[in-house]
Amino acid sequence: MPPKTKSKAEQASPTTTADLVELERRFAELADLGQIGSILSWDQQVMMPPGGAGSRATQMATLAGLVHERTTDPKLVALLKRLRAAADGLKPRERRMLHLAAKHVHRSTAIPEEMAREMAELESTSLEAWSKARAENDFKRFAPVLARTVELQREEARLLSGGVGDPYDALLDKYEPDTTGAEIDPLLDELVEITVPLVDRVRRSKVKVDRKPLVNNRFPAEAQRAFVREVVESMGIDLTRGRLDLSTHPFCGGIGPVDVRMTGRYDPRDLRGGLFGAIHEAGHGLYEQGLDPKRARSPLGGAISMGIHESQSRLWENMIGRSKPFWSHFLSKAKKRFPEALTGVKLDGMWRAANALAPSMIRVEADELTYNLHIALRYRIERELISGALAVKDLPARWNDEMQATLGVRPKNDTEGCLQDIHWSMGAFGYFPTYSLGNLYAAQFMVAAREAMPDLDAQVAGGNLLPLRAWLLEKIHRHDRTVTAGQLVKRVTGAKLSVRPFAEYIEAKVTAIYG
Amino acid sequence: MPPKTKSKAEQASPTTTADLVELERRFAELADLGQIGSILSWDQQVMMPPGGAGSRATQMATLAGLVHERTTDPKLVALLKRLRAAADGLKPRERRMLHLAAKHVHRSTAIPEEMAREMAELESTSLEAWSKARAENDFKRFAPVLARTVELQREEARLLSGGVGDPYDALLDKYEPDTTGAEIDPLLDELVEITVPLVDRVRRSKVKVDRKPLVNNRFPAEAQRAFVREVVESMGIDLTRGRLDLSTHPFCGGIGPVDVRMTGRYDPRDLRGGLFGAIHEAGHGLYEQGLDPKRARSPLGGAISMGIHESQSRLWENMIGRSKPFWSHFLSKAKKRFPEALTGVKLDGMWRAANALAPSMIRVEADELTYNLHIALRYRIERELISGALAVKDLPARWNDEMQATLGVRPKNDTEGCLQDIHWSMGAFGYFPTYSLGNLYAAQFMVAAREAMPDLDAQVAGGNLLPLRAWLLEKIHRHDRTVTAGQLVKRVTGAKLSVRPFAEYIEAKVTAIYG
Repeated sequence: MPPKTKSKAEQASPTTTADLVELERRFAELADLGQIGSILSWDQQVMMPPGGAGSRATQMATLAGLVHERTTDPKLVALLKRLRAAADGLKPRERRMLHLAAKHVHRSTAIPEEMAREMAELESTSLEAWSKARAENDFKRFAPVLARTVELQREEARLLSGGVGDPYDALLDKYEPDTTGAEIDPLLDELVEITVPLVDRVRRSKVKVDRKPLVNNRFPAEAQRAFVREVVESMGIDLTRGRLDLSTHPFCGGIGPVDVRMTGRYDPRDLRGGLFGAIHEAGHGLYEQGLDPKRARSPLGGAISMGIHESQSRLWENMIGRSKPFWSHFLSKAKKRFPEALTGVKLDGMWRAANALAPSMIRVEADELTYNLHIALRYRIERELISGALAVKDLPARWNDEMQATLGVRPKNDTEGCLQDIHWSMGAFGYFPTYSLGNLYAAQFMVAAREAMPDLDAQVAGGNLLPLRAWLLEKIHRHDRTVTAGQLVKRVTGAKLSVRPFAEYIEAKVTAIYG
Repeated sequence: MPPKTKSKAEQASPTTTADLVELERRFAELADLGQIGSILSWDQQVMMPPGGAGSRATQMATLAGLVHERTTDPKLVALLKRLRAAADGLKPRERRMLHLAAKHVHRSTAIPEEMAREMAELESTSLEAWSKARAENDFKRFAPVLARTVELQREEARLLSGGVGDPYDALLDKYEPDTTGAEIDPLLDELVEITVPLVDRVRRSKVKVDRKPLVNNRFPAEAQRAFVREVVESMGIDLTRGRLDLSTHPFCGGIGPVDVRMTGRYDPRDLRGGLFGAIHEAGHGLYEQGLDPKRARSPLGGAISMGIHESQSRLWENMIGRSKPFWSHFLSKAKKRFPEALTGVKLDGMWRAANALAPSMIRVEADELTYNLHIALRYRIERELISGALAVKDLPARWNDEMQATLGVRPKNDTEGCLQDIHWSMGAFGYFPTYSLGNLYAAQFMVAAREAMPDLDAQVAGGNLLPLRAWLLEKIHRHDRTVTAGQLVKRVTGAKLSVRPFAEYIEAKVTAIYG
């Protein structure tokens, strides 16, 4: 026998060691299948000719069937059961791996096959019904399908949680693991509280921001692509481990950290979507490229949560891309790319144009300030739909009242109201709050980054974005899912997540621009 | 009992009917996985950033493992056994499906797993050794690996054939099903016999063809892409069900008939590779797009053989793309695209340039006449390697002697001799003859097409390529694998495959150009 140098808590039996190896092998295979799914999905959105749609759906369904079969394999379930029984003998890293693996498997095994099938079928019915209802401003057409979706979401929540705790938490956990509604409620309430008066200040301000440096101007698509490439490469995006393409809906797809595919679209009259969209996706892309390739096939690999992912895109898009230091370096470069549009534009003018604030009906067009009001509204409503406090038929009225109360505007119809988003029609309840969590995480991380790098603004103004990237890599990206979002925030910023950093950041911005 | 309206031979029992449904279901899933593999492979060659290579290899290995597991599933093997026992009660179409399915499964089950692993490992070792040996003109470095490959190919042939018949046929069957070496031997012998004197006539001819209309001239890559698109769309390629991209090695990848991906490359000083390569791949593409989508997931779906596939590419590339009628329509269009290169070029000059003949050392640069000599040489040598009549160490001398005897040229070294092709290093023995079979099939089909469409040349000269495409679709493409290559040729041309149509075609061309 080898000398007993390890404490009992770190002493796994040979069987347990073999079980761990087998667990990693099985998850490596699942990871490969997941990556294959990402390629198919990227190809579908970026490359596939239209005629391929039907056969692609069949390929995806077959792949999903295989993944489900492998994820719910009774041998895997038994393996997890044995490992949980032996969990005391595992190292913390192994316990974390086991926790993530077990949760992943539970999400598939907890749902009976017939219900999973109904959910999948309902999703496509629902997407179609939503799309028609939105086009024809006919909420009543969509209401029955949405009501059934809510019912099934509740049932899913009940099955996932085993009836313990707030059912909403089980849905939220799919997107923001280890975070609860009870934690988010006060954060979003406070966020609304600090935002509403700021929106009011902007509304009453006499300052009119000229958007012309970015909108209703001439930004040829090819010049945008070249400029965007220059910017994202300055951020540290490595295009030997990724691509930048065109697609209708910009996104960032990760096929592991060595192959990250970002997309954008370029409106020749409006630089905002093309540029800030690209910086946003590149923020996601840096996170994906910063994940540890050695963990890419492990349950411990991948992004911690949607909120942490979004923090990386928002940090780069808003806190860097819309900042004065950023433009003090990149304005001259932009002028070379877009001489027709930008001749005579000054740094201050560009910075103001990039930060123009104004309430709008549509979330995806919202500015940095009001965006969180759109999210809080959706979060509150989906909480009530899942708890049963709000009936689907009463959704439009509830939506419009909340818009009036927080943003001070009232939708003329449901198309620009509660029918505007795709999420609920896809059964994605619990997703919305991760957008605002992303803003809060980003602001709190940024305070820590500034403490660590007092000359950060000077670096950015010199065009040197790489020190910030290195800090994010070291502090956030490379840890994958070895810690929870809560643990990460505590470790990186010394405190738990709070609204204050964002509140201070956004108030300073409103004051600087609107007085 | 229902009235017995069907003959006994068409009366399948309920169990057999259920078995057939299950067989189709399992093959549909395998087809989906095959299509997924095609997407991964296309992406790897056309889109993947270099950093993704390692993880792509892992994804492909996992997919291959799954496909192997599903193909060798004992339940599938048992299902096939039951169906074979009940084969008398099957309809001809069902029997053909069973035959194709059983052959497909047999190819996987016949090879022990350890041997399959050694073959896969040897393939990557061998590719690397070949690549180095070619770069350094060092056959001795490659010889031991090739010798082991030959041994394993022989063993594979023995296992696949069950020791019955010529082992080479079992390898050939992977690429040209239901065709034997005994059938090919006399065809290639005759092809060499008619070709050698023609090569001699070209060599002794006083005619010097001016290649300038196609080579050492200015053909900007973007103009080539636009011209090629115009040409392949004229042929009937439907780009809503396919794509045309760039890649280092042009190919045509079929992800089912609704999604066909062709690639090309464009040398700005040489139009030949870009244009004729594209027409060649589009010939493959038309075949793929012409397959019946309803059979895309069935054992009956897909191309009949590599030879039939190649017949479609060669027919369009050589018999149409290098023909006078083709250029009498497309020369003026080419002049618009390449005014610098083609001003003053006459139809006769372009046609001659497109058909210039001259022996070369390298197969992939060979002209239409000498190409078959390159193939016959490789075919004869691989026959001898598999039978054991030729030892690997004697390969270079055998190669060089045969080059001298048929093409009248002798390689200076092995890099331009027996190390030039990738095929054997990949273990692809039995593949080479399908190139020449493609030329023979093409010529024989073309005779039938001319009989059916006496005004074919006039149509082509008018730029109307669609009647030929419709004829190929009706006679060849849409039948998938419901018939063998032999049955197809008999049905379409009224005779079995012979050398004569090609001999007459190529002799006429040599006479017209070289006298």
